[in-house]
Amino acid sequence: MELSKITKVEAFLRPLAMILLVATACLVGLDTQTKYIIYYNKTVTYRDLKALWVLVYVTSIAAAYNLLQLSRCYFSARYQENLKGSRKLLAYWSCFALDQLAVYITFATTSAAMEHSILVLTGMDDFQWMKWCNRFTRFCFIIGGSLLCGYLASFLMVTLSFISAFNLFRLYSPKQFLTLKSRQ
Amino acid sequence: MELSKITKVEAFLRPLAMILLVATACLVGLDTQTKYIIYYNKTVTYRDLKALWVLVYVTSIAAAYNLLQLSRCYFSARYQENLKGSRKLLAYWSCFALDQLAVYITFATTSAAMEHSILVLTGMDDFQWMKWCNRFTRFCFIIGGSLLCGYLASFLMVTLSFISAFNLFRLYSPKQFLTLKSRQ
Repeated sequence: MELSKITKVEAFLRPLAMILLVATACLVGLDTQTKYIIYYNKTVTYRDLKALWVLVYVTSIAAAYNLLQLSRCYFSARYQENLKGSRKLLAYWSCFALDQLAVYITFATTSAAMEHSILVLTGMDDFQWMKWCNRFTRFCFIIGGSLLCGYLASFLMVTLSFISAFNLFRLYSPKQFLTLKSRQ
Repeated sequence: MELSKITKVEAFLRPLAMILLVATACLVGLDTQTKYIIYYNKTVTYRDLKALWVLVYVTSIAAAYNLLQLSRCYFSARYQENLKGSRKLLAYWSCFALDQLAVYITFATTSAAMEHSILVLTGMDDFQWMKWCNRFTRFCFIIGGSLLCGYLASFLMVTLSFISAFNLFRLYSPKQFLTLKSRQ
C-alpha cells in the first residue's frame, strides 16, 4: 500500500524531533555555573530565568507527545488508514490539531527564551539592566546550544505538522467545499 | 462555482487580520510616556525595547503582506482556480509557504515581545534588574493591549494558513503519495 510511504517519513522525523527536544530540555535543565561575585558565590541555573524554566517543561512535554505520536505511527497507522467515514476524519483532525498546537507552543516558548537570553547577553542600559553573560560565559554558551537544538526541533515539528495537514486535507474534494472525496 | 465559498471566508478574514496588525503596529509605535525620575525627565518609547521595535516592523510587513494576499483574493482567485497542472500547483504552494512563513514570524515576534514585557512588568531580583511598569503605568497598559491585538492577529493568520493548506493539499490524491487527483 502506497500510503505508508508518508508514514515512514513521519516515523523517521518524529524520533529526530524527540531527541532534539530531550537534548534541549537536558542541556537547559542541567546547565549550572557558580562564580564568586563581590561578596558571595552566585550560582545560576535555569530556575533563575523564567523563560528557561518554561522551556524545560514545554520541551519535555513536547518530547513525550512525539513519543506518543510515534507509537501511533508504528502500531495503529494501518488501522487508522482502514477506518471509514467520520471516525477516520476524527482521527486525522485530532492528529492535525494536536500537531499544530504542539508546534506553535514549542516555537513560541523557544522564541521567548531566545529573547530573554539576548537580553541577558546584551543587557539594557536604558533600563539600568546589567549584562551577565560576561561573568557566566560557559552557562551562556550551553544555553545558546540548547536554543539551537530547540529551533531545529521546532523546524522538524513544522515539517511534521505539514505532514498531518497533508494527510487530513487530501481527504477532501478539490471541487466542492468541505466535501469528502468518497462522497463525490 | 462552489470553490469560491472558501475564498469568501479568506476575503473576510484577511482584512480583519490586517486591521489587527495595523492596530498593533500603531499602538506600539505611537505609545510614549515621559516621567520625572530622580534627576531628569525620562521618555520611554518602543525604541527602548528591542523586542517592541522588531514587533512594529514585523506587524507592518505582515499587514502589507495580507493586503497583497487580499488583492489576490479579489482579482485573481478565479484565474488561479482555472489554472492547470504545474502552474496551479506553483500558485497554491507559494501561497501556502508564504502564509506559513508569515504566521510563524508574527507569532514568534509577538511571543518575544510578550516575554520582554513580562520582564519589564515583574523585574528580576536575581539579576538586579528593576521593574519599570510601576513608573510608566499608562505606557505598559497600552503595550498590553497591543500584544492582545497581536495575538488575535496571529490567531487569524493561523486560521488563514489552515485555509491555504486546505486549498493546496486537497489537490492531492488520498490513496497515492504526492500524486495529483487529476492523474489518478
